[in-house]
Amino acid sequence: MVVERDIDDLPKNEANHTALTPLWFLERAAVVHPTRKSVVHGSRHYTWLQTYQRCRRVASALNNHSVGLGSTVSIIAPNVPALYEAHFGIPMAGAVLNTVNVRLNASTVAFLLGHSSSVVVMVDQEFFTLAEEALKIWAEKSKGQYKPPLLIVIGDESLDPKGLKYALGRGAIEYEKFLETGDPEYAWQPPKDEWQSIALGYTSGTTASPKGVVLHHRGAYLMSLSGGLVWGMNEGAVYLWTLPMFHCNGWCYTWALAAFCGTNICLRQVTAKAVYSAIHKYAVTHFCAAPVVLNTIVNAPEDDTILPLPHVVHVMTAGAAPPPSVLFAMSQRGFKVTHTYGLSETYGPATVCAWKPEWDSLPPETQARLNARQGVRYIGLERADVLNPRTMEPVPADGKTVGEIMMRGNLVMKGYLKNPKANEETFANGWFHSGDLAVKHPDSYIEIKDRSKDIIISGGENISSVEVENILYQHPAILEVSVVARPDEKWGETPCAFVTLKQSVNKSDEKRVAEDIMKFCREKMPAYWVPKSVLFGPLPKTATGKIQKHLLRTKAKELGPVKMVSKL
Amino acid sequence: MVVERDIDDLPKNEANHTALTPLWFLERAAVVHPTRKSVVHGSRHYTWLQTYQRCRRVASALNNHSVGLGSTVSIIAPNVPALYEAHFGIPMAGAVLNTVNVRLNASTVAFLLGHSSSVVVMVDQEFFTLAEEALKIWAEKSKGQYKPPLLIVIGDESLDPKGLKYALGRGAIEYEKFLETGDPEYAWQPPKDEWQSIALGYTSGTTASPKGVVLHHRGAYLMSLSGGLVWGMNEGAVYLWTLPMFHCNGWCYTWALAAFCGTNICLRQVTAKAVYSAIHKYAVTHFCAAPVVLNTIVNAPEDDTILPLPHVVHVMTAGAAPPPSVLFAMSQRGFKVTHTYGLSETYGPATVCAWKPEWDSLPPETQARLNARQGVRYIGLERADVLNPRTMEPVPADGKTVGEIMMRGNLVMKGYLKNPKANEETFANGWFHSGDLAVKHPDSYIEIKDRSKDIIISGGENISSVEVENILYQHPAILEVSVVARPDEKWGETPCAFVTLKQSVNKSDEKRVAEDIMKFCREKMPAYWVPKSVLFGPLPKTATGKIQKHLLRTKAKELGPVKMVSKL
Repeated sequence: MVVERDIDDLPKNEANHTALTPLWFLERAAVVHPTRKSVVHGSRHYTWLQTYQRCRRVASALNNHSVGLGSTVSIIAPNVPALYEAHFGIPMAGAVLNTVNVRLNASTVAFLLGHSSSVVVMVDQEFFTLAEEALKIWAEKSKGQYKPPLLIVIGDESLDPKGLKYALGRGAIEYEKFLETGDPEYAWQPPKDEWQSIALGYTSGTTASPKGVVLHHRGAYLMSLSGGLVWGMNEGAVYLWTLPMFHCNGWCYTWALAAFCGTNICLRQVTAKAVYSAIHKYAVTHFCAAPVVLNTIVNAPEDDTILPLPHVVHVMTAGAAPPPSVLFAMSQRGFKVTHTYGLSETYGPATVCAWKPEWDSLPPETQARLNARQGVRYIGLERADVLNPRTMEPVPADGKTVGEIMMRGNLVMKGYLKNPKANEETFANGWFHSGDLAVKHPDSYIEIKDRSKDIIISGGENISSVEVENILYQHPAILEVSVVARPDEKWGETPCAFVTLKQSVNKSDEKRVAEDIMKFCREKMPAYWVPKSVLFGPLPKTATGKIQKHLLRTKAKELGPVKMVSKL
Repeated sequence: MVVERDIDDLPKNEANHTALTPLWFLERAAVVHPTRKSVVHGSRHYTWLQTYQRCRRVASALNNHSVGLGSTVSIIAPNVPALYEAHFGIPMAGAVLNTVNVRLNASTVAFLLGHSSSVVVMVDQEFFTLAEEALKIWAEKSKGQYKPPLLIVIGDESLDPKGLKYALGRGAIEYEKFLETGDPEYAWQPPKDEWQSIALGYTSGTTASPKGVVLHHRGAYLMSLSGGLVWGMNEGAVYLWTLPMFHCNGWCYTWALAAFCGTNICLRQVTAKAVYSAIHKYAVTHFCAAPVVLNTIVNAPEDDTILPLPHVVHVMTAGAAPPPSVLFAMSQRGFKVTHTYGLSETYGPATVCAWKPEWDSLPPETQARLNARQGVRYIGLERADVLNPRTMEPVPADGKTVGEIMMRGNLVMKGYLKNPKANEETFANGWFHSGDLAVKHPDSYIEIKDRSKDIIISGGENISSVEVENILYQHPAILEVSVVARPDEKWGETPCAFVTLKQSVNKSDEKRVAEDIMKFCREKMPAYWVPKSVLFGPLPKTATGKIQKHLLRTKAKELGPVKMVSKL
């Protein structure tokens, strides 16, 4: 080996090496497009210069309160400007941003605030009593160790002023007043090390105890660029905030929108009507949404829509695998759906079902089936593969052999906060273990079969609850469905379907509809996949629209085992 | 300051941290689009899977010859597939790629090969005798220390086979035969450290002694994504190689095209006809070109064009500031020109004249004037500013005060190879010194006034040669012009214009035309800017189309000083 090292003997210096951080995106947006709209919230709107100044005020005001490197600041808010500002202002102070899901209950919020050692809590006025109750629980549980965090309330002129007044009466500082104490020209410092933590987010609660996912500046920077590239996002994109920013930092599009000098359209409440209306009013080009939101958009009453769409709208979806029928209906309405997959632990989506031009000429149903797969890795990731978790060997690309999706690279989290055991497990053998079971197709695209814990094992055979759901979604009467395991005397477990119908039926008709659904299933799937139980009603969901299967699983267990004599 | 460090106590591990390198782009392109065309060269074309396999063969074959970490491999070739493959195959072997400008003379090439300690030289058959001569000079100058590098010749079926035969007779290995010795499944290793060098390129010779600019994997990765973002490049772009790949690695679009899974159209010879024909044949979406190439495209005879363009073609230009008149003519023909600025030391362009929608409604001439500025930093750079080199303070954004363009961030080179003195100067005070003089406009856009050494100092006043040139380009008879300082008995220096006319004139008419040009100047610029000498003829250029002002400056000096009695 000929080795002449002087080609590498050039050290880093201040001019040629700097920590990667998305914070510079904001500074650049303010310089390049100072007067362009950055954030719009009803009648309130800001320019990029204003947003930059407001974020510097946040950082400055926090530093005035001794909040800096290593501190955690929590914020409990829906998609309002203050939450967007928190994504820059808090890290500009050197601190870590903890976004809290607004639909959690007070005791979970108490756990999050305590576990993250939050020194500041910012809360939207709508959720002030939630925060108050959470602080009370935290104080009680900490047995005298409790040090009250700085409490800041974010007012909203579109809400009843009483809520804000109440909060102020309880000693909270008003967000705008807090900003006034900060310097709009504050000389914030980028992180010295790009491995420095930028954000913390707790797993959304489909599992029992929330884990704190810690992300760093380097990853947030790379995800912002990767997410734009994968989606064909261009400079000046108009982005609608249907996806909560508190969910994996809005899949890092919070930061990406500054990189692309785009415009953020906020949305406190997501309804099909609000989505269509924003598309019309602001010429929205992009939005992200969980599959259930797509379902709502597809099934919206005609009066709530503005179809046909005045321009192409790019939609990114991820989370649970969206049923092909929903993807098909979206594309029929003129939405261009990019299907991605990821986890909080991977900064949001980290694989994409990259569309191939050769699919353009296929029948729409085939297109939808291909596009329902989880696909291939983002450019920011080094690897995403389906491995046999015992041997750590990739499964054959046969579309059949099930393994676990694993990833490695710069879009994988730093780790779980204060949880060495979970970190050891999740990073075992040098790969991040997603816990999702999948196959790899001959074209190398990954397709999820199920979460490890969502697999139904019936008579020793694995049944993918997702595949059963995908077929059920083709039934014309079904709006939403979730399939879980129910104990079964004979088979151990059998599928149990929880269904929401498009039009509700009388209790007395339910049996007939259930039988019709089972008949439909018998024609379309192996006999052992057919749900032996079909139950009706609304499905429990997380704040981000994920169906909470663990609750349904509990419910199915409570029904007791399916008896051997069952005729269904 | 509340400091709780456990939020940062999560170490890097194999799963969550990997060196940034553009090499993964190729692996991904081969997985996602294995059958898509990667590289097209006349009748020869490859798919991404093939390109990946060929690059792995290159890496494997090099390793078989003990070429690896710390070695430098030089390649002397125009835009042919082998040069594209070199951008991946050589770094996959752990080695550093040195791309050599094919238009250099043998003694300069000898200097480059020796200075870079090249252990392998790959050369296109057209340039074999150049390489041979260079090796001879290198051997002579090294006084017995010379160790002949491995010599590989790249054949091309579109050329006379005699050339290849000659090279093989002289002991060179044929490139395709060399590839056959490599393993297409070779298990290449990404760099352990993203600071590892990936490429070396020598400054193009507008200055006297070439300096070796060393780039690293991290920068090449970030530039690939930044360059795509800035240009609105989308997945599947079709890119025409008008810009030489040997020029700053084709501004990193070599690597970027793999990231975007696009198609590379090679071009051995750049003519207006070839450009238009490729746009038509391959549906080219993007190409880069120096201003002089734009000039050729704009002035092409109608028969060579395919106007109006069948689709929008995105053109990126950089280098010397293109005259507004050329930008205007390009946009009139339907090309969308993105104007950028940078240097070999910044991986190619690192600032962009980001277009603003509010310019859309301005008169075309105003648009062209605004777009002729160098603009704002790329997203991959931390800062680009105009500083006073003495105080290191930014100049006021008044469009008047001249300072030096300086940059800092991850798109700044590692340094010059074996040149500590130049490194010290260029990185002084923690900024990269570009040597270009500019102003900053009130909208923060940078505009170059001149290279430090191109400024003409007349009677103590600075004259920007670029501004004089921009006005001269408005003269209807002028095709190309370059203005340099000529010694002047009275004023010290005065402007001297070297002009190529659109239609050449008789020697006897030159005086009349020169007087007409000077009259034109007197109407449009301050009297002391008006060139006192106007000379006609072709302009000397570098391989990348840059006019070699230092040669013109020498020529102007040789004319002797302008006499005090001069009436011009």
